[in-house]
Amino acid sequence: MIKRRLDLIKSPSDLKRMREEEMPLLAKEIREYLCEKVNKTGGHLASNLGVVEMTLAIHRHFNTPKDHIIFDVGHQSYVHKLLTGRKDFDSLRTPGGLSGFTKRSESEHDCFGAGHSSTSLSAALGFAESDARRGSDAYTVVVLGDGAFTGGMIHEAINNCRQDLRLIIIINENEMSISRNRGGFAKHLSKMRSSKGYFKVKDVTHGVLEHIPLVGKGAANLLRDTKQALKNAIYQSNYFENLGLYYMGPVDGNDYKAMSEVISVAKALKRSTVIHTVTKKGKGYRPAEDMPQHYHMIPKGGVKPEAEGFSVKLGKILCEKSKTCKDICGITAAMPHGTGLEVMKHNCPDRFYDVGIAEEHAATFAAGLAANGMKPFFACYSSFLQRAYDNIVHDIALQNLPVTLCIDRTGLSEGDGATHHGIFDVSFLSAVPGMEIYTPVTYEGLKMAVDTAYTRGVPAAIRYPRGCENPQIIKAFYPDDRERVLGVKADFKDEADCVIITYGDIAAEALRAEEIFRSMQVRAGTLLLEKLKPYGDTAKELASLIPCTCNTVIFLEEGIRNGGAAQCLFDKLRELPCLEGKRYVIRAVDDDFITGEKGRTLRQSARLTAEDLVECYFNKNNL
Amino acid sequence: MIKRRLDLIKSPSDLKRMREEEMPLLAKEIREYLCEKVNKTGGHLASNLGVVEMTLAIHRHFNTPKDHIIFDVGHQSYVHKLLTGRKDFDSLRTPGGLSGFTKRSESEHDCFGAGHSSTSLSAALGFAESDARRGSDAYTVVVLGDGAFTGGMIHEAINNCRQDLRLIIIINENEMSISRNRGGFAKHLSKMRSSKGYFKVKDVTHGVLEHIPLVGKGAANLLRDTKQALKNAIYQSNYFENLGLYYMGPVDGNDYKAMSEVISVAKALKRSTVIHTVTKKGKGYRPAEDMPQHYHMIPKGGVKPEAEGFSVKLGKILCEKSKTCKDICGITAAMPHGTGLEVMKHNCPDRFYDVGIAEEHAATFAAGLAANGMKPFFACYSSFLQRAYDNIVHDIALQNLPVTLCIDRTGLSEGDGATHHGIFDVSFLSAVPGMEIYTPVTYEGLKMAVDTAYTRGVPAAIRYPRGCENPQIIKAFYPDDRERVLGVKADFKDEADCVIITYGDIAAEALRAEEIFRSMQVRAGTLLLEKLKPYGDTAKELASLIPCTCNTVIFLEEGIRNGGAAQCLFDKLRELPCLEGKRYVIRAVDDDFITGEKGRTLRQSARLTAEDLVECYFNKNNL
Repeated sequence: MIKRRLDLIKSPSDLKRMREEEMPLLAKEIREYLCEKVNKTGGHLASNLGVVEMTLAIHRHFNTPKDHIIFDVGHQSYVHKLLTGRKDFDSLRTPGGLSGFTKRSESEHDCFGAGHSSTSLSAALGFAESDARRGSDAYTVVVLGDGAFTGGMIHEAINNCRQDLRLIIIINENEMSISRNRGGFAKHLSKMRSSKGYFKVKDVTHGVLEHIPLVGKGAANLLRDTKQALKNAIYQSNYFENLGLYYMGPVDGNDYKAMSEVISVAKALKRSTVIHTVTKKGKGYRPAEDMPQHYHMIPKGGVKPEAEGFSVKLGKILCEKSKTCKDICGITAAMPHGTGLEVMKHNCPDRFYDVGIAEEHAATFAAGLAANGMKPFFACYSSFLQRAYDNIVHDIALQNLPVTLCIDRTGLSEGDGATHHGIFDVSFLSAVPGMEIYTPVTYEGLKMAVDTAYTRGVPAAIRYPRGCENPQIIKAFYPDDRERVLGVKADFKDEADCVIITYGDIAAEALRAEEIFRSMQVRAGTLLLEKLKPYGDTAKELASLIPCTCNTVIFLEEGIRNGGAAQCLFDKLRELPCLEGKRYVIRAVDDDFITGEKGRTLRQSARLTAEDLVECYFNKNNL
Repeated sequence: MIKRRLDLIKSPSDLKRMREEEMPLLAKEIREYLCEKVNKTGGHLASNLGVVEMTLAIHRHFNTPKDHIIFDVGHQSYVHKLLTGRKDFDSLRTPGGLSGFTKRSESEHDCFGAGHSSTSLSAALGFAESDARRGSDAYTVVVLGDGAFTGGMIHEAINNCRQDLRLIIIINENEMSISRNRGGFAKHLSKMRSSKGYFKVKDVTHGVLEHIPLVGKGAANLLRDTKQALKNAIYQSNYFENLGLYYMGPVDGNDYKAMSEVISVAKALKRSTVIHTVTKKGKGYRPAEDMPQHYHMIPKGGVKPEAEGFSVKLGKILCEKSKTCKDICGITAAMPHGTGLEVMKHNCPDRFYDVGIAEEHAATFAAGLAANGMKPFFACYSSFLQRAYDNIVHDIALQNLPVTLCIDRTGLSEGDGATHHGIFDVSFLSAVPGMEIYTPVTYEGLKMAVDTAYTRGVPAAIRYPRGCENPQIIKAFYPDDRERVLGVKADFKDEADCVIITYGDIAAEALRAEEIFRSMQVRAGTLLLEKLKPYGDTAKELASLIPCTCNTVIFLEEGIRNGGAAQCLFDKLRELPCLEGKRYVIRAVDDDFITGEKGRTLRQSARLTAEDLVECYFNKNNL
């Protein structure tokens, strides 16, 4: 069997030893490898297939870790990982395994971690500026998709690009970021491309390279001499050029030779440069080329028919309700599919907004809609909502506007890891005056929360788990058709020695703990919160439900401890008689990011399992 | 005495009844009025003097509250306030008085409140979209300075501008936003202006207006017919036009007639339009024209020589330390003067960065610098730091990078009001894993905190009050030259019935409470925290200092209660013997924004005064 070229690469220096002619075959091998692995483990496939040639070209021209390569979001770094000695793709996206994003602790070749969009250029400026300060001749290369331009941070960073940095910004226009609605800036890029056809790299390459030995007086002179030649070939972009950056493009990013040449030009310029490339997302893998949206993120076990989880339900609930409530709008920040709001796009397109990867704008836009008589629902993953914190405080809550935040993907994120944990929202929203927080764990509860938030017409957040409702939780807490009001649900009627208070789908751990307790002759019961804030109301309900026989109350929270529900509620409960003489123990994520350990689930790492609850009960040192 | 025109204006309809010829005189009267009033009360003067003609023109062409006018940041809305029946300028910027920003609760003419930059266009899109949904023909007009473009949100919003909204975006290039460093985008605007000279409105005005009666088939036809004529006159801006917006400009914004004409064109277009104006900041008031930076924000009592407060000290400390520590950088988001970092600009310009109004970028840029070996200090007002929350979590803390946040203007903001309160930072930073929080109240303490944060090399926040150190606090807690380590300082040695724990300059209220207690024969003492987090360490120190004679511990916190230091520390203290049998009472800002009441200080409204502490002690119902 002939050894693959890929197998010869243990580090970027092995790549540099290969001949240019070998690159197309190597690219093919890499595609095959990724398709095979990622279809099994799950992960971002299409975007990585698109950047194979580009990544090869970058690594052949630059030397990490001295030079710095930063990938926006970092989910298109699989090729980079392969070329920098990381081939344990069977562990991709598992706790303690290969991260699905760049990660500093994973390799010296990952100089900056990411997971959220549009941060790359800001970080890159940090690298480039510090290199400039200390007189280093290192380069910083940023790879970002056109979708990143829907996020404001990129513009903040571009605005701060000095001209004289060894900074190369590669804009990868792949005609499909996560969602198709990419707004004006992407159109601006497309227009540049379509109006000019592909950039002929060779003319410029020769122009620049021929001058280098002749001038030999450093970058400044080189620039002056070649500027006119470059100008003739480089597309005239008022925007980037007025911002002080050289602009080259568009270049076919799936053409290794073209990429290699344009990068060598940019390198020779020794100043801040934009390379605009166009690549085919899913390149080389037919299913992904045809349906890049489905192959953007492959779930573990491969692409399968959609399971009807909370996200899909939310879309349906809002769609249905918006038929009669003409003031409902749905907003998503580039996640129509992920948040389930896509269905609104089809059924009530005039009240559906996909604003791009722009959570800040989304929240303030929602506030504007609300101030003018609408009742918007902004659906967002918990970890991305962190970006809109000021907008929630300053634009929504301070003005007491009827905006509802629908917070998806709450709790620890097993696949994506720490950058995607939804563990901060309860803390940061508890601090926001007047914000009501609902925590449904059933579809019925989700609907009630939407109805309640709509009717109350004040700032509200509805947070719910990833995936589907849990039949065990339904069985335990909703045994019959009794009158349904969002509040505290108990799974016990009589006495209990230990009461567990919890919310969210981690309630399953509480139920499992009850079983263990039962086997140990400890009477345990669980109180499930469908609503957190106002905390005063919740505390009162709890007070009436904690039995006097109980000696220990354990609060189980899949979120950060400081400022979380356990602390806030305890502040209300502590002088009520319900806790008199009882221990109050909190199990939450305690000042830690939970980055994952091999062979353990994240809940195990965070000590949030049934076994941890039992240990809590018996070990009196626990707080 | 001849009555002023200004006195005839009780509402915008009075303005509309005046003749166009009267506008220059009215503008003059308004300028005189503002100069007189604002020089007394303090407030934003220069920017308001710049927008007089523009505001007159807007109010003559549009009808609020049906039409919507949104001012970015809102500090240039004084003229708007004057024209909409608000003339109580003697109460400007006092609790319960006229707000220094737009405020929904103040007037139906203020459709959207602001106080932070770059939010206006997002909000405006909310208004324009909801009007479009319901078939309203209302217009939305946004006024924003060129400085706003350094904030990413504006770009997120522009990216979402549909072409067919009745939306008029007036960009006011005043050649001086708060700081002079406005980055690439402002240069881009300037280039447009300088390369073309002023836009001749008349040609277009006639072209468009003549067509209106002839076509009469709605906006779409009008556009088709006039598009070419407009194109000839309108400056060719790839950027705005490729984004789908009409662009007109630049227009002299201090020329009433020109402004009126260009607005009438934009109105007739009935679609999304950008008007680029140039105004003179401080127009008509010589001192402000000459030194607009000093007259941007006039302190109460008028422009005076700088008092050396915490901000100035911070700049000096960093400057001094950066002489020997070559890895120190200083970063500000458009507040070099306000944060005191300006001195670095002069003394170590190569390690000083003013990134524009771009807190998100600033934090991630700092993370990039830190990942490449630097130790950046990002100085920011507390309420603006809210914008960088995700960047602090995702880029700084998760990667455990040595970035120090220097948080200025903490506590309640008497002059600016609720949009500027620095009351959330302790809550939102307490939730961030690994973040250390220092709370110096003396210059010496500030220096120690900078030294400690630098040496420890982990994510840290140093928060300090506005203004100067308080001699009373120094006298009480730092009586001699004993060994100085940041920690808990006590102002009592012996027994105490009541112990007040606090941090920040609200400690002055604790000291005052002690006096009242003394007069009532209650022995009281105060524990001052110079450091909050890690909370475990602080709790241990506290435990050793709370005397067993104490029956009540009151935690006084000028910040939000949920997730604040009182709750976090209580979570650590509650099972230590130090609190056994003692009441623990928290006085903090309890789920409220503290928007101000006439005749009361904000601390009174928030119940954070000495008197409130005494009441707490005796009223056992307090928690």
